[in-house]
Amino acid sequence: MLTYMGQKAQTAARILACAPTAQRDAVLKDIADRLIAARSDILAANERDVEAGAANLTEAMIDRLLLNEKRLGAMAADLRHVAELPDPVGEAFEQRTLPNGLQLRKQRVPLGVLGVIYESRPNVTIDIAGLALKSGNAVILRGGSETICSNKALVEVIGQSLRATGLPPDAVQFVDSPDRTLVLALLRLVKYVDLIIPRGGAALHNFCRQNSRIPVITGGVGICHLYVDDSADPGKALDVIRNAKIQKPSACNALDTVLVHRAIAPVFLPMLVSCLSGDGVVFKAHESAASLLRNGGQDLPLSITAAAPDDFDTEWLSLVLGLKVVLSLDEAIAHVNAHSQGHSDGILTASRRNAEHFVAEVDSAAVYVNASTRFTDGAQFGLGAEVAISTQRLHARGPMGLRELMTYKWIATGDYHVRL
Amino acid sequence: MLTYMGQKAQTAARILACAPTAQRDAVLKDIADRLIAARSDILAANERDVEAGAANLTEAMIDRLLLNEKRLGAMAADLRHVAELPDPVGEAFEQRTLPNGLQLRKQRVPLGVLGVIYESRPNVTIDIAGLALKSGNAVILRGGSETICSNKALVEVIGQSLRATGLPPDAVQFVDSPDRTLVLALLRLVKYVDLIIPRGGAALHNFCRQNSRIPVITGGVGICHLYVDDSADPGKALDVIRNAKIQKPSACNALDTVLVHRAIAPVFLPMLVSCLSGDGVVFKAHESAASLLRNGGQDLPLSITAAAPDDFDTEWLSLVLGLKVVLSLDEAIAHVNAHSQGHSDGILTASRRNAEHFVAEVDSAAVYVNASTRFTDGAQFGLGAEVAISTQRLHARGPMGLRELMTYKWIATGDYHVRL
Repeated sequence: MLTYMGQKAQTAARILACAPTAQRDAVLKDIADRLIAARSDILAANERDVEAGAANLTEAMIDRLLLNEKRLGAMAADLRHVAELPDPVGEAFEQRTLPNGLQLRKQRVPLGVLGVIYESRPNVTIDIAGLALKSGNAVILRGGSETICSNKALVEVIGQSLRATGLPPDAVQFVDSPDRTLVLALLRLVKYVDLIIPRGGAALHNFCRQNSRIPVITGGVGICHLYVDDSADPGKALDVIRNAKIQKPSACNALDTVLVHRAIAPVFLPMLVSCLSGDGVVFKAHESAASLLRNGGQDLPLSITAAAPDDFDTEWLSLVLGLKVVLSLDEAIAHVNAHSQGHSDGILTASRRNAEHFVAEVDSAAVYVNASTRFTDGAQFGLGAEVAISTQRLHARGPMGLRELMTYKWIATGDYHVRL
Repeated sequence: MLTYMGQKAQTAARILACAPTAQRDAVLKDIADRLIAARSDILAANERDVEAGAANLTEAMIDRLLLNEKRLGAMAADLRHVAELPDPVGEAFEQRTLPNGLQLRKQRVPLGVLGVIYESRPNVTIDIAGLALKSGNAVILRGGSETICSNKALVEVIGQSLRATGLPPDAVQFVDSPDRTLVLALLRLVKYVDLIIPRGGAALHNFCRQNSRIPVITGGVGICHLYVDDSADPGKALDVIRNAKIQKPSACNALDTVLVHRAIAPVFLPMLVSCLSGDGVVFKAHESAASLLRNGGQDLPLSITAAAPDDFDTEWLSLVLGLKVVLSLDEAIAHVNAHSQGHSDGILTASRRNAEHFVAEVDSAAVYVNASTRFTDGAQFGLGAEVAISTQRLHARGPMGLRELMTYKWIATGDYHVRL
């Protein structure tokens, strides 16, 4: 079954890659219109998923799979926004004429066929389909079994729009069986699929990386650090830390660990704990920090527990924050490079020299100077849309926009040039 | 053993990534000097490989593993040339200030640790070590068992240079056992190796792609086409075809198949066969071409045989050329997209419109208009050096220079910016 889907996707991808900008934009707007027009069917299908999940899903999971008119409206608005973005297909760059007169340029072309494996949010179906079509890529979608009715209804709408705008319906296909061996089969479709994008937790990413024969964009997992240098403005540093921790604790770019220089720690740490405790944050304190936070040298406040050895290798995704005191900038850098997953890490400092040293030595997808880690996001970085956040090193790193769904070809134009 | 090598390589890579340009250039020049100074030891080691191979290697294979003073001199000269190239490390690009005042830029940083698996040419050891060090990457080399003495001698020299210039000797490590299970172990070192680059034939590339858990740059295999449009200048077209076929038939960018428009074929094909037969080329003719080439309608000339079905899926790497007549530009494009491995394909035409159509529809790493496929090469494209030619789609496509051994990080500098 998947081989056949792969063949059809590849054929569709070739047509899509040559389809004009207006046609690819039109299909996005048409999907947006149909999402609204078909809302009663879509919401009815979604209700079947919600009912089926009532028995065994948590409230948070139900919320994630739930669609309503407002959410459908937001999905439609996102599609219209993506349609307005500049077309990445065909963009020429690095143009030059070689000494022998051969004219050389690179031209962006779609990657081809994307395989996207995701979990319970049905909006990902529309989101990824929109980004794939905009960038001229075909896509094979594999959503979670708990949203299968919603996804079928959404893919049905997408298919109608593809037909209505004259694009191949196979450009967006959906694996509509909950059979998990099909995920493995998708990861082995080397001949037809050019890139695998998992959207979900660490377990899904690891599974894809372990089993895929196709390049995988892994990411979405971040153990994010902020280091408070002794030169940092304590009040402003606190604002940034609070933002990075509490603005959206479940996000991959939310803060996990604060490292504080020992010269500022005796003043800064109690201030930090006092402020963030008010937001409901609880702390995992390394002994270096705990020793400064004991009440009268005896007990830790209730919001603080001693950090276990692997706490600094844990992505909290909740209102938990690790605390550690470091003796120097270099100790901070060493801690970050040892425990970060290469997502987002930053320094808060008044010293340009220390900032430069931190930026040079910390090798994460996004490195911050005096800013919240929460900025690691395609929209925040001005990319217009976000496909994923890559924490692997090849092809694209950090937030991926439309351009990161492209490859290029070299085009050389001569006058019957021969190599000497 | 490989895990330990991986750990050491990762540590070395972190030091190397922050080493100044001058130090990385100095080590290349130092290796060049020592290659010449240690030539008697190196050539003696190489002689042991040649003697060991005498019994079971072909003359061509012996020639490939052979070193002499001239070849050592060329290797040293290449290193000095690479040392002079601009440093790709730390290059900033896509700088911008976001509406909120956050300053954002991308900065090129080394990929980290490369794993390079190659076959009999010992010059690859020096070549890759030089490119890795120049680009701030550590490398684990796995050469062919038939060149193990030569490679040990070369790696010994590299180690001396690394120590002499104060760089970590583990930046270039060599798997000095012929045990083939170590190749598999290298392909599984996900935790320490960032990119696998195979340098060799199709079997090696397929093995790496099948077995690697690390991203692999596959390439080096090309079934290259030139399509002769009915508007092409026959004499000039012949010059380009001859160059693409005979200048270096063993190269991956050498021509494999000529497609000729039927309007020009009755004149052009006999001309082509007559000219290239003089160079020793033999032909595999599709019936569409053979029917135009039979002597007096009876027999094919001795240099021509009827093409078997899979001949158009064969990379010849020798003086063999496939011939086919097509009814239209679209048939030519369909043939190329069905049989090309996405390496190098071109059109010979006087029609700008046909050239544009071919360029738009043919999705190969390098697409040519009125030029020989032999130009697909890092040096010819002005990249200064060539790591490999990629025919996969992610990260880099076509000739890869130093910049293609880099990734980037995002650097965001603010004034205690928080996300709203």
